[in-house]
Amino acid sequence: MQLPSTLLENAVAQFAKLPGIGKKTALRLVLHLLKQDVNDVQYFGETIAKMRRDIQFCQRCFNVSDGALCSICSNGARKQHLICVVETIRDVIAIESTQQFNGTYHVLGGIISPLDGIGPDQLNIETLVERVEAEQTEELLFALNPNIQGDTTIYYIQRKIGHLPCKVTTIARGIAFGGELEYADEMTLARSIANRLPIGQYVK
Amino acid sequence: MQLPSTLLENAVAQFAKLPGIGKKTALRLVLHLLKQDVNDVQYFGETIAKMRRDIQFCQRCFNVSDGALCSICSNGARKQHLICVVETIRDVIAIESTQQFNGTYHVLGGIISPLDGIGPDQLNIETLVERVEAEQTEELLFALNPNIQGDTTIYYIQRKIGHLPCKVTTIARGIAFGGELEYADEMTLARSIANRLPIGQYVK
Repeated sequence: MQLPSTLLENAVAQFAKLPGIGKKTALRLVLHLLKQDVNDVQYFGETIAKMRRDIQFCQRCFNVSDGALCSICSNGARKQHLICVVETIRDVIAIESTQQFNGTYHVLGGIISPLDGIGPDQLNIETLVERVEAEQTEELLFALNPNIQGDTTIYYIQRKIGHLPCKVTTIARGIAFGGELEYADEMTLARSIANRLPIGQYVK
Repeated sequence: MQLPSTLLENAVAQFAKLPGIGKKTALRLVLHLLKQDVNDVQYFGETIAKMRRDIQFCQRCFNVSDGALCSICSNGARKQHLICVVETIRDVIAIESTQQFNGTYHVLGGIISPLDGIGPDQLNIETLVERVEAEQTEELLFALNPNIQGDTTIYYIQRKIGHLPCKVTTIARGIAFGGELEYADEMTLARSIANRLPIGQYVK
């Protein structure tokens, strides 16, 4: 695909770098912007650049934030002694949108994965351990993806804080709402049977 | 979906304005940019804004251009007496990518559509008529979408240039390559029979 203008081509190349956006979609987006007002497009570009330049990460939980402390950490109504450990900011957003969690978070920034060259030192683990110790955290709730790397990460952190009086829990594994028993994998099904609940307890 | 930062939220809102991009996809794109280098994201924003601010439209054919005349109009190797009339810039790009057309273009910027309130005055029709007259164009090839509005537009322009010795043609309608006869609409099939070609002529 040859484009009639270098400016157009550069803009398309920039959009095509984004995940899930190919050259054709990028062109569609750029031609859409071409029809918009100059000031609107200027604002679009500035908003994106400003977001990346000015955004901060919460010093306590490493969530994205507009200030030194994020809105969750600085919210007195939330249980500051309950920390939910997640891999990414996206997980925070997913859990927040359930409106069922009233504690705080700690974003690891990834999980331990030796095959990808990611060790504990590259993650926000040391700060988590310090935080649990300093804040006398009562419960660490792990909400990591259920795989070897997730389990390794939990195990590693658990050993690091073993000497502290902090309860360690993980989110429940089981059959998803709307899921079908017959298509569930054996491990999930087995765990959901082993961890069975009295009727009436699974919805609070 | 509540986001933990206003900066993030503004950026997501900007992306979500683009066609075919919802709030979830917008968030995915913004979180991707958040992981990129500050300078790269700055460059992204500037490239888009610069594209909209500095891009020009060819004074002759209204294609996008980096200068007063587009690369096609200023190319001496192309037949300047053959003009392909298209609706949008996207059509120019589509035809150019076939590498089968060696003339120039004229971008109307839309088609006559009274129901949408688009009349001949809002399109680049007057300039086309002047151009055909001044340049002594030999052939006008219409490559418009095959519908009532397209046919109306062709008819209107044809009447405007009726007094000039300019041949008027339209791209062929017929069964697409890879298309199946049994699923073709009657009109297309009927036209493709009426305009049948000797074997060997349909591929040049």
